[in-house]
Amino acid sequence: MARFRILIEYDGRPYAGWQRQAGHHTVQAAIENAVLGFSGEAITLKGAGRTDAGVHATGQVAHFDLSKDWSERAVRDALNAHLRLNSEAVAVLSAQSVGEDFDARFSATARHYRYIILNRRAPAALAQGRVWWVPKALDWEAMAEAALTLLGRYDFTTFRSAQCQASSPVRTLDRFDVSRFGERIEITASARSFLHNQVRSMVGSLKRVGEGGWEPQDLRAALDAADRARCAGLAPPEGLYLEQVDY
Amino acid sequence: MARFRILIEYDGRPYAGWQRQAGHHTVQAAIENAVLGFSGEAITLKGAGRTDAGVHATGQVAHFDLSKDWSERAVRDALNAHLRLNSEAVAVLSAQSVGEDFDARFSATARHYRYIILNRRAPAALAQGRVWWVPKALDWEAMAEAALTLLGRYDFTTFRSAQCQASSPVRTLDRFDVSRFGERIEITASARSFLHNQVRSMVGSLKRVGEGGWEPQDLRAALDAADRARCAGLAPPEGLYLEQVDY
Repeated sequence: MARFRILIEYDGRPYAGWQRQAGHHTVQAAIENAVLGFSGEAITLKGAGRTDAGVHATGQVAHFDLSKDWSERAVRDALNAHLRLNSEAVAVLSAQSVGEDFDARFSATARHYRYIILNRRAPAALAQGRVWWVPKALDWEAMAEAALTLLGRYDFTTFRSAQCQASSPVRTLDRFDVSRFGERIEITASARSFLHNQVRSMVGSLKRVGEGGWEPQDLRAALDAADRARCAGLAPPEGLYLEQVDY
Repeated sequence: MARFRILIEYDGRPYAGWQRQAGHHTVQAAIENAVLGFSGEAITLKGAGRTDAGVHATGQVAHFDLSKDWSERAVRDALNAHLRLNSEAVAVLSAQSVGEDFDARFSATARHYRYIILNRRAPAALAQGRVWWVPKALDWEAMAEAALTLLGRYDFTTFRSAQCQASSPVRTLDRFDVSRFGERIEITASARSFLHNQVRSMVGSLKRVGEGGWEPQDLRAALDAADRARCAGLAPPEGLYLEQVDY
């Protein structure tokens, strides 16, 4: 048996998210079909992050096993050839042969997400579906100040979807930065793992700070309340990118 | 009468180019329809650059006249509202009231284009339709060296489409730079005006240099031949962006 770790980029728009679901077009199924196409083997792909519908990735990681031994280059190129054949918006950036102890989900030590807000009066044309368009001017410095108050190990119940299946709402947020590049506000969030909708819930609440509806300290007060009703909003999926997974 | 100058961004993919053509979906017609929608006036929009099908813009400029006097802000916001209503991939970044002597096409003193090549083994996923995917590794430094040899005032017949309607093939190329940013090779080209397909013809020929099929001096020899048959190829439209027009 040979285990492969693949690095994946995708446009989230055409997909009902990462995870395979009967009757839906998903990234996991697209890649599983491509593996079947070149190898004849029906595999189960295991990903590091189960991104929601519309969420993009520039550095998703997954693993799968093949009974036959292929070269890393052959796996990458054959997967891409089959993904293109099926007009998928998915590309395999690299394939690496790894030991059986590697698990894309459980071996991950950090996940890095980026969220992009297009903050200008004019809607997105070129970046449609790739950013959250917010026409009202946001105070990104207030957002940056507020973001820092969430760093550390806390109960993130406020920023967790009602559907979240994690056994504990406690997570350690290692990085939560806000920067402005012209019309774009970019937010980076890093943690070993995130709760369901955590990044989008934190960004949706940060926007409230940016609009002046909340003072920076109100974000921390919402965290401390550990109450989902205190979340100020869920940012839409199209601004979110899974950028990197560390092992 | 009030003349407005607008700054426009568009995704070229859904359009048969800039210029209005019966039976085709074009950027010019999309904006003319939006003007009609908010003002009730049927106008003719005049653009600085007639981009081809699939070519994008982050800084196209155009002008039009209205009989009623609107505020700049109202024009911008009303155009964007109507463009969104029609699901157009076009946004008006700004609208400015200008004198009757302003002409988006003839008053332009420089046009700046950018061409993006994605140079990696894996196809484009997120950037599909926005870049030219070239899987074979290109020598961007050889391309940069060759590009410099085209700077100046020359007969650009080699890099001109057979359909070009310009009266003279002589143009002055003021900037033609090649840079590498990770997997991307970006080429910027500036001139007062360009011939039809000139940037894509020059980039297609630069790629030949990058592959090693031509030495850098072969690009200059092709220019000097003033022979369309010496053009080494036409780069596809999806990597090209009209970035800025100066007045």
